[in-house]
Amino acid sequence: MEPTLVVFSGGQDSTTCLLQAIAERGAANVHTVTFAYGQRHKLEVELAEGLAKELGVASHKTITVDWYKDITHNALMDTDTPIAKEAGASCPNTFVDGRNALFLLTAAIYAKGLGIHDLTIGVSEADYSGYPDCREAFVKSMEQTLRLAMDWPFRILAPLQHLTKEQEWALADKLGRLDFVRTRTLTCYEGIPGDGCGKCPACRLRAAGLEAYLRGKGAR
Amino acid sequence: MEPTLVVFSGGQDSTTCLLQAIAERGAANVHTVTFAYGQRHKLEVELAEGLAKELGVASHKTITVDWYKDITHNALMDTDTPIAKEAGASCPNTFVDGRNALFLLTAAIYAKGLGIHDLTIGVSEADYSGYPDCREAFVKSMEQTLRLAMDWPFRILAPLQHLTKEQEWALADKLGRLDFVRTRTLTCYEGIPGDGCGKCPACRLRAAGLEAYLRGKGAR
Repeated sequence: MEPTLVVFSGGQDSTTCLLQAIAERGAANVHTVTFAYGQRHKLEVELAEGLAKELGVASHKTITVDWYKDITHNALMDTDTPIAKEAGASCPNTFVDGRNALFLLTAAIYAKGLGIHDLTIGVSEADYSGYPDCREAFVKSMEQTLRLAMDWPFRILAPLQHLTKEQEWALADKLGRLDFVRTRTLTCYEGIPGDGCGKCPACRLRAAGLEAYLRGKGAR
Repeated sequence: MEPTLVVFSGGQDSTTCLLQAIAERGAANVHTVTFAYGQRHKLEVELAEGLAKELGVASHKTITVDWYKDITHNALMDTDTPIAKEAGASCPNTFVDGRNALFLLTAAIYAKGLGIHDLTIGVSEADYSGYPDCREAFVKSMEQTLRLAMDWPFRILAPLQHLTKEQEWALADKLGRLDFVRTRTLTCYEGIPGDGCGKCPACRLRAAGLEAYLRGKGAR
């Protein structure tokens, strides 16, 4: 079984990816990497480390990117900026320029050192907030760029690419891990694990998907 | 005149690019970024800062990438590893996995914050040491990936892409800056500016190009 390195934040998306990778490959073939890049909540990084260990991954690494906050600005890293989507903007001000590219590139450099080809990331372009680096076109282009940059046959796996939040909850349920994802992960912009604050855009998207899934399941 | 951000190490290649950018656009439209990523010689970073200021660029920024040494290994960053090209290896052990991709991505994130579209980098695939991230195919793919990642019309300019070292010296001479590049830049793996140690692969490549250029010039 080929090993994979999962870009893991401890949120709903990457946790679902991690659980799926473990189900498919066994925890001994799954490695995780978490980025501390100045996001609002340091708790996110600690929570990710804790979940990775609890799930028994082969290795977990936290990489601190100190310079991010110094060269770009957004509401996710600047705690005095209210989260909003300005009129005419293509995506909310929580967009961190280049974030998924940086995660994938850094993960790829690290993976090559471990002899790993596969990178797993929880991006989705269904239900996404307009973030350009969640689109399949970006992921495909990034894969090609990584191969060329390092002469290494990387594969980027984005199993949630075309799943809505509702379908993502269905996947967690199919893996027998709906409650785990619901109660143990952190998606909320206010830094509250589980069901979160219930009010921020991330909580609303997550809750709407869960409700739709549970409603549909009840009806069946 | 469009501004450009030059990825600037203070070596022969990037200094020649910087001088050309200044000649074409004026120093007021040229910004520089230098990366401190754990390379053997900290002098390189200080030298780059000094040259950038002396040349009067619009802004200079040094970005420290702390984690590089922690996730990958090579003779450029590991001072106890002798520089060599192993039998059968496609490039010398000075290759830093993902370096040009990381420089370009980070520069792009920073450039977008400054409202800049153009990125200039001194990569060359002629006379190169087999580094995959110096090839034009990589640069083109990277440009496309950056555009998709950030929805921003980046252009990567690699004016040395197809120049040999000899042609690069000719370019410096044409800009009236041959002596400046020869005496003030740092290419040597041993950290000695100007003509360097004369023995390492970087010095030998640089010296051979200069000799060929001066010989050809003398013959004309």
